[in-house]
Amino acid sequence: MAEEKEKMTIVMFSGSLDHALAGFILATTAASMGMEVSMFFTFWGLNIIKKKEGGIRSKGLMKKMLNLVNRGGSQRLKLSKLNMFGLGTWMMKKLMKDVNYPSIDEFIAMAKGMGVKLIACTTTCGVMGLTEDAFRSEIDSMTGAAYFLNEARQSKVALFI
Amino acid sequence: MAEEKEKMTIVMFSGSLDHALAGFILATTAASMGMEVSMFFTFWGLNIIKKKEGGIRSKGLMKKMLNLVNRGGSQRLKLSKLNMFGLGTWMMKKLMKDVNYPSIDEFIAMAKGMGVKLIACTTTCGVMGLTEDAFRSEIDSMTGAAYFLNEARQSKVALFI
Amino acid sequence: MAEEKEKMTIVMFSGSLDHALAGFILATTAASMGMEVSMFFTFWGLNIIKKKEGGIRSKGLMKKMLNLVNRGGSQRLKLSKLNMFGLGTWMMKKLMKDVNYPSIDEFIAMAKGMGVKLIACTTTCGVMGLTEDAFRSEIDSMTGAAYFLNEARQSKVALFI
Repeated sequence: MAEEKEKMTIVMFSGSLDHALAGFILATTAASMGMEVSMFFTFWGLNIIKKKEGGIRSKGLMKKMLNLVNRGGSQRLKLSKLNMFGLGTWMMKKLMKDVNYPSIDEFIAMAKGMGVKLIACTTTCGVMGLTEDAFRSEIDSMTGAAYFLNEARQSKVALFI
Repeated sequence: MAEEKEKMTIVMFSGSLDHALAGFILATTAASMGMEVSMFFTFWGLNIIKKKEGGIRSKGLMKKMLNLVNRGGSQRLKLSKLNMFGLGTWMMKKLMKDVNYPSIDEFIAMAKGMGVKLIACTTTCGVMGLTEDAFRSEIDSMTGAAYFLNEARQSKVALFI
Repeated sequence: MAEEKEKMTIVMFSGSLDHALAGFILATTAASMGMEVSMFFTFWGLNIIKKKEGGIRSKGLMKKMLNLVNRGGSQRLKLSKLNMFGLGTWMMKKLMKDVNYPSIDEFIAMAKGMGVKLIACTTTCGVMGLTEDAFRSEIDSMTGAAYFLNEARQSKVALFI
């Protein structure tokens, strides 16, 4: 029965390309092993699931500025190290292609297709000036920290990435 | 009975404002859900619970220098990303106030009031040149890695932040 | 019986000196408490277990460049914060020596001697252009994300560092 599946819950806190990759590799592998996986995007991790274009109309100058410097979208993610003004990130993406690695967009589609739940954290959306329309259509729901903790305490594996 | 409460244990390794917020949001939410929560501060995370003023008298030039560049205190924490020489951090604090978010000081008081245990890691205090008088009065105890591991293996959720 | 030992599994994602220390302190402490510990090195964490000298002959200009800027080896690890062009890292190493802390090389030997399993993640080796001969002889095996997840779901404690 579906209720008896082992669960994994991941907090996606960091919004860098490498952290995003690590999260999606673990999530899709766990799903392929029959686990029930939830990814809970919060803080910088929200950038991973932001829409690519526009759509973010935050009120107030400060929130507008924050969303300008913190644009996000799967194709804008940078490496957390060795970004080297974009060169390192470009090289990493090139190497990923060379070994037929999925891109983040492809990973999101794969995860979604495998039943991984993609959740945006409402507790931090408020501070970041983000509303539901800032996110991709693949997002399953927007919930708070209590929802995550409830999932996590039922999980065999809970990671903070 | 208190002994049967579900436990959560968090290692607070990173000393940035965003990591501190994530830790306290999870800790206070878990406590409000009836969980028994321990926060174990180590490495840069020790900055979160340092006293605001003075009090840190470390012996040896090197430790003095380290504590000078690594001053800490809840109000000196910076964002791990987009600090932009302080502008990003200032903006984030402003936005937190706008949505009536607690500050780190308020979160420490809240967590304490809800019974969250705040623990400083002795294993790293030595390397960092810190003794008990470097920390706020809210700290419950100073213990080593073995104590953390013993809590963690009894916990439903253990996170490294 | 050995099969009944409690397990701990750590993902070593970050390749900085401080993250490496945190990982080895937890791993060796857990092993000394009778736990069965696996350390799973991936992404930047692979730097911690790279050979000190040469040995990395990756094909293709891009992989060669990546391994040049991302050289690794236990003695090249830097602090994730306050590196200050090497000064902070040098100070930290000095302070570690002053309080008779093991170096990373000594921690690797200790962990190995205590039965901690050191594992390199094949899933990321491909993208990083690394093959088995890039790593120290202490490495027990090279496996993928599925192996880690299988260990993690049997573990009392699983951390992402």
